[in-house]
Amino acid sequence: MSSSTNKATEITSDGSFNRQKNRFVTPFGDNPGDLPVEAGRYRLIWCAACPWAHRSVIVRNILGLENVISLGTVSPMRPRLEHVDWEFSLDHNGVDPVLGIRYLSEIYKKTDSTYAGRPTVPVMVDTKKNEAVNNDYFKLTNYFETVWSPFHKEEAPDLYPIHLREKIDSLNDTIFHDINNGVYKCGFAVSQESYEQAYDSLFARLDELEDLLSNSRFLLGNFITDSDVRLYTTLVRFDAAYYTAFNTNRTLIREFPNLWGYVRDLYQTPGFGDTTDFDAIKQHYHLSITIFTNKDEVKILPKGPDSTGWKTEHNRQKLSNQVEKFLYSK
Amino acid sequence: MSSSTNKATEITSDGSFNRQKNRFVTPFGDNPGDLPVEAGRYRLIWCAACPWAHRSVIVRNILGLENVISLGTVSPMRPRLEHVDWEFSLDHNGVDPVLGIRYLSEIYKKTDSTYAGRPTVPVMVDTKKNEAVNNDYFKLTNYFETVWSPFHKEEAPDLYPIHLREKIDSLNDTIFHDINNGVYKCGFAVSQESYEQAYDSLFARLDELEDLLSNSRFLLGNFITDSDVRLYTTLVRFDAAYYTAFNTNRTLIREFPNLWGYVRDLYQTPGFGDTTDFDAIKQHYHLSITIFTNKDEVKILPKGPDSTGWKTEHNRQKLSNQVEKFLYSK
Repeated sequence: MSSSTNKATEITSDGSFNRQKNRFVTPFGDNPGDLPVEAGRYRLIWCAACPWAHRSVIVRNILGLENVISLGTVSPMRPRLEHVDWEFSLDHNGVDPVLGIRYLSEIYKKTDSTYAGRPTVPVMVDTKKNEAVNNDYFKLTNYFETVWSPFHKEEAPDLYPIHLREKIDSLNDTIFHDINNGVYKCGFAVSQESYEQAYDSLFARLDELEDLLSNSRFLLGNFITDSDVRLYTTLVRFDAAYYTAFNTNRTLIREFPNLWGYVRDLYQTPGFGDTTDFDAIKQHYHLSITIFTNKDEVKILPKGPDSTGWKTEHNRQKLSNQVEKFLYSK
Repeated sequence: MSSSTNKATEITSDGSFNRQKNRFVTPFGDNPGDLPVEAGRYRLIWCAACPWAHRSVIVRNILGLENVISLGTVSPMRPRLEHVDWEFSLDHNGVDPVLGIRYLSEIYKKTDSTYAGRPTVPVMVDTKKNEAVNNDYFKLTNYFETVWSPFHKEEAPDLYPIHLREKIDSLNDTIFHDINNGVYKCGFAVSQESYEQAYDSLFARLDELEDLLSNSRFLLGNFITDSDVRLYTTLVRFDAAYYTAFNTNRTLIREFPNLWGYVRDLYQTPGFGDTTDFDAIKQHYHLSITIFTNKDEVKILPKGPDSTGWKTEHNRQKLSNQVEKFLYSK
């Protein structure tokens, strides 16, 4: 995979960013052909900088799946290779201790020798077969929330309640297009027009959610759902990374009163803030972000913003009149 | 002048930015060897994006020197040449109508054929001799305020009152090192350490001025002085350019209550806002800023920030109990 191949694949003729499709999308479940749900069998590979991977780690943590699905971590700094990759350089000797690989591409290639896309996180690796089996970041949290429920901890909350699924799915779709992927469409656009379209959609949607969150503690009412996890992973990166590195510079999240209170409410909830690594986020987006190769110029890591504000009082309890932020439906 | 020569000249061994010295520093005045003060003789060349040039245009405007010193304007978009230059591409046929030149370097070279630095704005060109005679951005406004006073308009304010000169000079020096040039030291640093030093000095000074401006309408009391002009030209560019393009991303100016009120107070004063061109500023800093050459990658112009806030009520009149913002001492 050369830099130009990659660019040709993910940039359309009008200069807009068109994210590559996921390669491994077999669902987890009990149906024939599904990936079997088994404790101790899978290894989730993530990067702390990556919002798509972060969402699955937050949900794994909230549901208590830490001892059921193991976790491997690639560095936020991409290696300087001819192809775009992720590297296990944070591990001892630069090798994942379970998979024994140095680069994420190794497991992608081993599973599909014709694989020509970027290797991505999150990816679930079947350690029995030593193969990548699912990199469907869009559905992975939903699998954790549903078919993996036999392994949830006692008193795990319900992040994907049946009576709300239709609303959650619809909202997730909107959040994906305009916000989660919207910031990337701003940052990776190579034409002014496609950038501006993405910028307008992004801020129109943030304005809408700012309104919604003025009288709703979370996106769908009094309890945290899967949609909040998805919105969180973009919001928490916004001021430290996207505003400057992706040109999403109309308004900082800390300037939206409701979004700022909301995202701190989540940040201060176990599973969110404790899996959020601002250093990794800043290093990746400012020093090492790329879907192309050949970026060898000197880069400086912006010193700001100050992240101490994340722990300040948000006062959003009054919106729900609830002590609990999670719905426990078991 | 090659790109590497230039880089070698203005980047020190520790990776910090060391601005080149001004070439033409003969003072205006009545002493032997001084540049004679004459109406209609000089042409001031500026770029609307450049804070160093902007200050001289603001003072020229406030003092009513528009018909005494003519104005030529280079484009905020640098030409793509082997050397760093400014271009008269906004003019008919791309040529300054008075000087008859396409590139600013032409008048620098004509005046000094050995000149090896970047040609800079502001520069005063003696149209009688057809030579660049003064590019001393640090002192130029002071010349306008003092020896050029015979040509001031009726009722021109005193921006450099004798009883305050010592304080103004001292403050100007501080503002220069930590703020005016401080943002450039952040943006042009090629080592992390020198960037962080400049960042710390910049925000320490802004915090100090934020305090000062909580109970003082302007830097030196109730009236606008030369120091306010100098601080203004950096502050007005900060959110639109430096925060993102120069990594000065701790705090936006619009997040400092007093600095934000102060800079709007100035923006809404004739001479300031009407000479401020946000489009030029954004184009230059995001698409065309360079002290080196060879920057041909695709660049996107950030759409934000929204500049409508600049005309909103600032309520700082109460700090001075004065209708007038200028000191009229004539």
